Amino acid sequence: MLDICLLGTGGMMPLPYRYLTSLMVRYNGHSILIDCGEGTQIALRKKGWSPNPIDMILFTHYHADHISGLPGMLLTMGNADRTEPLLLVGPPGLTKVVNSLRIIAPELPFEIKCKEIQGPEESFDAFGLRIDAFKVNHNVTCYGYSMSLDRQGMFQVEKAENLGLEKKYWGRLQKGEVVELDGKTYTPDMVMGPARKGLKVTYCTDTRPTDSIVENAAGSDLFICEGMYGEHDKLAKAKEHKHMTFYEAATLAQKAQVKEMWLTHFSPSMKKPDPFMDDVKKIFPNAHAGKDGKTMELDFSE
Amino acid sequence: MLDICLLGTGGMMPLPYRYLTSLMVRYNGHSILIDCGEGTQIALRKKGWSPNPIDMILFTHYHADHISGLPGMLLTMGNADRTEPLLLVGPPGLTKVVNSLRIIAPELPFEIKCKEIQGPEESFDAFGLRIDAFKVNHNVTCYGYSMSLDRQGMFQVEKAENLGLEKKYWGRLQKGEVVELDGKTYTPDMVMGPARKGLKVTYCTDTRPTDSIVENAAGSDLFICEGMYGEHDKLAKAKEHKHMTFYEAATLAQKAQVKEMWLTHFSPSMKKPDPFMDDVKKIFPNAHAGKDGKTMELDFSE
Repeated sequence: MLDICLLGTGGMMPLPYRYLTSLMVRYNGHSILIDCGEGTQIALRKKGWSPNPIDMILFTHYHADHISGLPGMLLTMGNADRTEPLLLVGPPGLTKVVNSLRIIAPELPFEIKCKEIQGPEESFDAFGLRIDAFKVNHNVTCYGYSMSLDRQGMFQVEKAENLGLEKKYWGRLQKGEVVELDGKTYTPDMVMGPARKGLKVTYCTDTRPTDSIVENAAGSDLFICEGMYGEHDKLAKAKEHKHMTFYEAATLAQKAQVKEMWLTHFSPSMKKPDPFMDDVKKIFPNAHAGKDGKTMELDFSE
Repeated sequence: MLDICLLGTGGMMPLPYRYLTSLMVRYNGHSILIDCGEGTQIALRKKGWSPNPIDMILFTHYHADHISGLPGMLLTMGNADRTEPLLLVGPPGLTKVVNSLRIIAPELPFEIKCKEIQGPEESFDAFGLRIDAFKVNHNVTCYGYSMSLDRQGMFQVEKAENLGLEKKYWGRLQKGEVVELDGKTYTPDMVMGPARKGLKVTYCTDTRPTDSIVENAAGSDLFICEGMYGEHDKLAKAKEHKHMTFYEAATLAQKAQVKEMWLTHFSPSMKKPDPFMDDVKKIFPNAHAGKDGKTMELDFSE
């Protein structure tokens, strides 16, 4: 139901073997991209995907490695004759940043809408997905994002029969509608069981560990979190540059009781993240080093 | 003496197997980059080179595929603690474009100087190389660049002896100095033979064929020219978008009597340029399809 692809896993600068961190989420024919650094359109193309189905790009913040690929991405969409509007979402200042970057992409055959997130948290709907933006702690305003797909409860046949409501009205209640009949009001909760577990993916990068991450990532099926450094002795450096070590990320995963964690946004100085994973798994066993193009298909459990 | 590397050969958008067109010229410890699209810093890294030795970036024009990699390149230089100033050169409007793009690269530990080219032709010196910028014909103001390394004549021992000048002064004349002695003036031309053939590289992309290209590329050792389309029937499209076919580029090479030509700036729709090269060589035999990372070392002939 939710198709996840980590297009890149790098921080700071793109490398020949590691594109900059960004995430593609595909749901029900819609695509949402989080962050768009230099080369993100190449990573997308490498997966064999077109940028045209992207309905929305969420930006965590406006450091170049998270947005420098935007003008090129917009032009590639334009060259493919896109006409559907594109929604860009990000911290305050988005319109100014986008307009400034568009000095090299001034003419596009589609409309760009900008939505600037306000306050510490903001929720909005996107094609049936709930997106929760939450402020994290970097050296510029930066947000993490959770994407949740809720799942309603089971239809309770017994309850419907007990209501004495004719079968032909059941479907409307199941779809969430209210039925008025013979002076009586029937509401969905009268026939639906408790909401079932939905799907949830949380993404945060370029931040120190925060309570907001633990709260918003709570119970996620997949938690994608920055891990700039794997070396234990780089904690001071992580604090100085407002990033995290692998172990701090794993501690967040453990506190938020997520199902699975992927690390990303590796420092260019790190050749491979794998040698550090044994230590990471001691804190959070279901932790994995992100890899460019790593995918997951999340389905409702039976 | 002149190290040439075509970092990418693509036009419009970077592809997983083809970076955007840009050229690195290395001479006497200095490096000059022409154009810097999205991913150029990845292509550079792929060659194993750092961006830090780059002293100057020349821009042909400000379409995104020729400049979208600038903010990332600047930040990568800054992250490597560069302190030497960087000179950017390009058509009018450069300062505005650079400042606008720097919204995502505002703080750098080195100075950026911008030089805007004026008029149809402009020449300037760069570390002993002569650079000739010449206007070409695209749908925005666009320049081509020739880089020339002049070579003085041979020292003529016989002439020096006939002058009756003591041997210890010969070296000064050979270095181009004037020697005043016993009321007589000795100038270099009295002992130096005619200037010998130097080295010349010409680069032009995003243009229709022009006389200015033929004039400025004349006698080049290497002529790197755009060829957006290989298919003969795409001539109308080339004219419409102010680009060239392979055959138009080859005709320029033939008219300019260059030694060797490389084609570049291939349309994303072109899988491989090679199938068209037989036809190209009928017009200009020493034509080659550019490849990402293609290099050449140009030395003075004996």
